[in-house]
Amino acid sequence: MNDFIIKGNIVDSECPDRLRVVENGSIVVTDGLCRGVFRALPEQFAGLPVQDFADRLVIPGMSDLHIHASQYAFRGLGMDMELLDWLNTYTFPEEAKYLDRGYAERAYGGFVEALRRSPTTRAAIFATIHPEASLLLMEKLEASGLRSFVGKVNMDRNCPDSVREPDAETACRETEAWILEARDRFTRTEPILTPRFVPTCSDGLMEGLGRLRKRYDLPVQSHLSENGGEIAWVKELSPASRFYGDAYARFGLFGGDHRCIMAHCVLSEDEELALIEKNGVFIAHSPESNMNLSSGVAPVSRYLKLGLKVGLATDVAGGSHESMFKAVQHAIQASKLRWRLLDESVKALSFAQAFWLATAGGGAFFGKVGRFGEGYDFDALVLDDASLFHPQPLDVRSRLERMIYLADDRNIIAKYVAGNRLF
Amino acid sequence: MNDFIIKGNIVDSECPDRLRVVENGSIVVTDGLCRGVFRALPEQFAGLPVQDFADRLVIPGMSDLHIHASQYAFRGLGMDMELLDWLNTYTFPEEAKYLDRGYAERAYGGFVEALRRSPTTRAAIFATIHPEASLLLMEKLEASGLRSFVGKVNMDRNCPDSVREPDAETACRETEAWILEARDRFTRTEPILTPRFVPTCSDGLMEGLGRLRKRYDLPVQSHLSENGGEIAWVKELSPASRFYGDAYARFGLFGGDHRCIMAHCVLSEDEELALIEKNGVFIAHSPESNMNLSSGVAPVSRYLKLGLKVGLATDVAGGSHESMFKAVQHAIQASKLRWRLLDESVKALSFAQAFWLATAGGGAFFGKVGRFGEGYDFDALVLDDASLFHPQPLDVRSRLERMIYLADDRNIIAKYVAGNRLF
Repeated sequence: MNDFIIKGNIVDSECPDRLRVVENGSIVVTDGLCRGVFRALPEQFAGLPVQDFADRLVIPGMSDLHIHASQYAFRGLGMDMELLDWLNTYTFPEEAKYLDRGYAERAYGGFVEALRRSPTTRAAIFATIHPEASLLLMEKLEASGLRSFVGKVNMDRNCPDSVREPDAETACRETEAWILEARDRFTRTEPILTPRFVPTCSDGLMEGLGRLRKRYDLPVQSHLSENGGEIAWVKELSPASRFYGDAYARFGLFGGDHRCIMAHCVLSEDEELALIEKNGVFIAHSPESNMNLSSGVAPVSRYLKLGLKVGLATDVAGGSHESMFKAVQHAIQASKLRWRLLDESVKALSFAQAFWLATAGGGAFFGKVGRFGEGYDFDALVLDDASLFHPQPLDVRSRLERMIYLADDRNIIAKYVAGNRLF
Repeated sequence: MNDFIIKGNIVDSECPDRLRVVENGSIVVTDGLCRGVFRALPEQFAGLPVQDFADRLVIPGMSDLHIHASQYAFRGLGMDMELLDWLNTYTFPEEAKYLDRGYAERAYGGFVEALRRSPTTRAAIFATIHPEASLLLMEKLEASGLRSFVGKVNMDRNCPDSVREPDAETACRETEAWILEARDRFTRTEPILTPRFVPTCSDGLMEGLGRLRKRYDLPVQSHLSENGGEIAWVKELSPASRFYGDAYARFGLFGGDHRCIMAHCVLSEDEELALIEKNGVFIAHSPESNMNLSSGVAPVSRYLKLGLKVGLATDVAGGSHESMFKAVQHAIQASKLRWRLLDESVKALSFAQAFWLATAGGGAFFGKVGRFGEGYDFDALVLDDASLFHPQPLDVRSRLERMIYLADDRNIIAKYVAGNRLF
């Protein structure tokens, strides 16, 4: 039985532009789902067990729409290059290590424990090309209580042998076996098709993945329009595509009949954005990564105005930290610099908007997730700011804003995913 | 007696572009001063007591060239405005509270304890206009063991009555009394003249402060060319000045015959930079604040190339956090976005350069500070990264880079200022 009441100072998003704050409120949870947020508890729920978090804050869990588990080991390192050189110099050599089960065991162990302690309750995760290590990662995620999509990565060209699948056929065969085993073994941890990005995926591989996608009705994740050099290269490699995203769409890997996440979209042009909108593709905005790799800043408030589906992402190890709190902060800061330095017609993100992106915006990829609305999965964080000195009374909204800038893992004292308490 | 040897993995700056790494090295300290860094300890020092920090990192303490103690209470809040509105809406009402000794006691207590635990060993600090509260702050700083300059703020126009000194004469009289008392009572904590910025300081006040500066041979700190609206306003208010910095220089408050820090310099033009160079003015680069208040990004690598004196600053509460580690990270990230979005002729900062700014660059304001060179004050942090998971061996330089992105107060296990251990 998963029915209970949570008491505390409750904050979630009413809409992308506005927070809802209920001081000393109650959230009723039945069967792991929210029944509503109440200022005064209705009589009918009087018998349910109560977890009273008193003056602490209760907010929705956060969804990280793009994170590389296999890059966690070198987070905070090697930030002196742009995307393509960074991949060749740091990333591919690191990802090659996941052929070694012992290494994967240690590295993924550290990653999953950090994610478990973080503000993230849901994540869309890249592993590597290695099926065994990818299953190991999924096993650890499953045990953690988090909900996630995990992609065994596909790539069969333009990368070192150590991280290249030998050919499209082998890649698809191994990917299919991985899908079947993952589906068989896990319930909270689902496979997601993961062509790394167009430069490393041959047409044959894309075709094969398109077939697998349909056969198993899978979602898709990849990278899109992150960096100028990357986009120019895609144009060369795929001259038949009208724009970068079209190089996925041609193979049925760009949303429409399936859920799809494209990370970055820093430089997407109108035609690409039109297809993103039409196909309901989720944009994983990765502000810290886009700063660290000198990619730029996606015009997120424009995307919100256009009604696109946007969520937030840490993109470790382009981003240095797994904390979605930091991603919220970086999203606001980067949007201000974009406004100031590049284009005053695209407004900076407000705190409410950035918070919405991290909760409801990205949560929508996972279903009814990221708010405390009726019927939503109960994903929640309980935050204690007693350690963050303040000499004056602060209202709940201010306490939340401050925590996003100042809090770390010590300030998260309880975490729920789909009604289950993780700690 | 303050003679000892520190052992550990030692890192400091050889020059702005290059780190010096000495694995398993020794720093010899006599009379609180560095005698040198040694791979093998010379015979002559064999008798000194040894603090062996084994595999941990030992780096120079950091100098925060610009931080508002009186804004610490609202750090991480109210980041939805530009400078001038932000001052009127959030900052001035907060600073008015420091008339109340009880409030100052609580708020400055929290600030000083946070600074003591932070990577900062030296700081140039703004208080408020209130002499009593400013002395209280200095008393707490003195007791902390940190070394600092503290400014009782001066302003007598264009601000609410609650934070305005009644007239230039009163302001100067109270400031002089504060200087005399501070000089009498403190040794580690020195007064610094602090006209807030041109818009809030009448010519009469500036003249008076210029006289006090000479009479007591004091250093000066203020704000310069942070925001477009501010610069336009200065032009209106001070039509006789050729540029913003000239409005300080006219009154002998812009370096030359004294030490001077100007915070920001985001938008300084050539004539201003020429005077900054000529007068040896220190620029306090405040990257997070310049993001949060949508001011822009100072072209720091250009300033380094010009040979200007530059250090780094948190600028709390324009910046959200007192950690200079975060300032290093923000300096690199902001410089990358400036390069990408605004001007590819000004290079992004390297990790070595940003580390230099935070240590040797800003340290130079305080004397021979910020490196482990012979004759330098021994300011040091001992860093333990055992809590920062990694599945693979990392070299010392990588461990340092990673700590700057990932570490918090838990990772600083010892701190020395001028040879004295604070914890």
